[in-house]
Amino acid sequence: MAIRGEESSWFDISYIGSSGAFGLLDPQCLAVPRADNGRSFESTLLEHGFDPRAIRERRRLLDPARVRAYLELHIEQGPTLVDKGLPAAVVSAIRGCRRFRNARCLGQYGHSGTLPRSHRRDAVAATVALLHHLESLWIDYERRGADLVFTVGELSTDPALHAPSKVSGETRFVLDFRSASEDTMRDIVAGAREAAKRVGDAYRVRFDLGDTSDSPAAIMDPRLRASLLDLLDQPFEMASGAGHDAAVFASVGIPSAMIFVRNDHGSHNPEESMDLEDFAIATRALLRLLVDFPSA
Amino acid sequence: MAIRGEESSWFDISYIGSSGAFGLLDPQCLAVPRADNGRSFESTLLEHGFDPRAIRERRRLLDPARVRAYLELHIEQGPTLVDKGLPAAVVSAIRGCRRFRNARCLGQYGHSGTLPRSHRRDAVAATVALLHHLESLWIDYERRGADLVFTVGELSTDPALHAPSKVSGETRFVLDFRSASEDTMRDIVAGAREAAKRVGDAYRVRFDLGDTSDSPAAIMDPRLRASLLDLLDQPFEMASGAGHDAAVFASVGIPSAMIFVRNDHGSHNPEESMDLEDFAIATRALLRLLVDFPSA
Repeated sequence: MAIRGEESSWFDISYIGSSGAFGLLDPQCLAVPRADNGRSFESTLLEHGFDPRAIRERRRLLDPARVRAYLELHIEQGPTLVDKGLPAAVVSAIRGCRRFRNARCLGQYGHSGTLPRSHRRDAVAATVALLHHLESLWIDYERRGADLVFTVGELSTDPALHAPSKVSGETRFVLDFRSASEDTMRDIVAGAREAAKRVGDAYRVRFDLGDTSDSPAAIMDPRLRASLLDLLDQPFEMASGAGHDAAVFASVGIPSAMIFVRNDHGSHNPEESMDLEDFAIATRALLRLLVDFPSA
Repeated sequence: MAIRGEESSWFDISYIGSSGAFGLLDPQCLAVPRADNGRSFESTLLEHGFDPRAIRERRRLLDPARVRAYLELHIEQGPTLVDKGLPAAVVSAIRGCRRFRNARCLGQYGHSGTLPRSHRRDAVAATVALLHHLESLWIDYERRGADLVFTVGELSTDPALHAPSKVSGETRFVLDFRSASEDTMRDIVAGAREAAKRVGDAYRVRFDLGDTSDSPAAIMDPRLRASLLDLLDQPFEMASGAGHDAAVFASVGIPSAMIFVRNDHGSHNPEESMDLEDFAIATRALLRLLVDFPSA
């Protein structure tokens, strides 16, 4: 079985192939436009001779009960293995994500020269205070050994209304929290909402963080992880920060495991660089696992 | 004499009328496009029967030696007089401005899930740290009684390259510092450059603040200020945060003074609200000053 579209560059839909196989795609995804020509996912499927009805009916094409296990080999997309001088790692879990995709801060525009600090409702100043606080929360989580990454990938004042000499009345931004632990994600999301209320009051603005879009963390199968670790000369385990089809297979109860191969310069760029010797180490471990598959 | 274009809504040129009268306009301003139709300032002048050569030759049309004083009445554009329950104020100085109009933070884009904090070169995180520090500097200046306002009116990641799941590789922002004191502006600009270096090193990014565009602070004439204060039942003096033609007249050595009238809801909006009784109090003070003008 080959799986397409784990991360489609045409459609903003995650795990199209694996989720589709298990009848997990939301039928609303059929309306999602193709990035280059704007045609919907549904008409693109029809054009290529596929039948979108399975998605519309949430029909399961692959029965999890018929799948004994799911194993995936992937380059590590971060710098950890290069840093540690290790050729491969067993993946402990695939981080879930809580994303505030449409967060806003609503203040009031005003003249930068004439408005004293005490009278400002400055959306930029409040947003800076909130983001600064969230970074300090992240550092606290790390100190306590929790698995967490926090990113603000998008942040902007309103180009139609902002000006160099105007106190800003609005910002828009995206908060992205990822962790292998559902508890940690629940905690930090609650912490973000609490901080938004407190900072908003202090700066006389209103934060509208909106809902989060959630993808759950996926714990890899403990038995398969233990077996894979035994098969590595230098056993090492780490969480995956990026999403993988293994998360979908794990979510339907299929014992799933992943092995990462050392890779320099990150991923999604032409500088990706993996040694074939490292690849062989990881492949050999997977092969041995298959040859001597652990019983349930 | 009537003065046009103190704050033109067509052309991004300050004090067109007063600066032009004294031959102070930079001839490059002739190329500035009109906001609505894109035609240059020069061709707009020609269309309306004016001669742009005076600007090109920096020719002085008004001799400062022939002007005994410059007096200006204006609504206060901030909330101070409403707050204090005072009808009018004498202006001590017009704040100057140091503006970093094209500040940037240059980091490196990366995957939000896979890049540990220790490896990030996160432009948003660094910018937040810098702006948070600058706000704390501002609060320190205020505590020491210095006149200063600080505003970040524009802030943005790059819409062409940012994404919810990307560590940001670039921000652009504008820093606006205003003070009645040239020393304070010099200090805070040096403090901002020093902080940009230090925060940049800590976050492994590079801040490129660029040059500042400067407008000097303009101290109003001490003799005229003292006379005007004597003419108010409730004498009160304050700095002007917004620019006024009085700054240009003061800059060419003409004794200049301003009186502010209480005004609710700020300025540049339809809610501006001045009581005619307050206007009369300020006008009467100006009239008495003219009738009994202080000798040099």
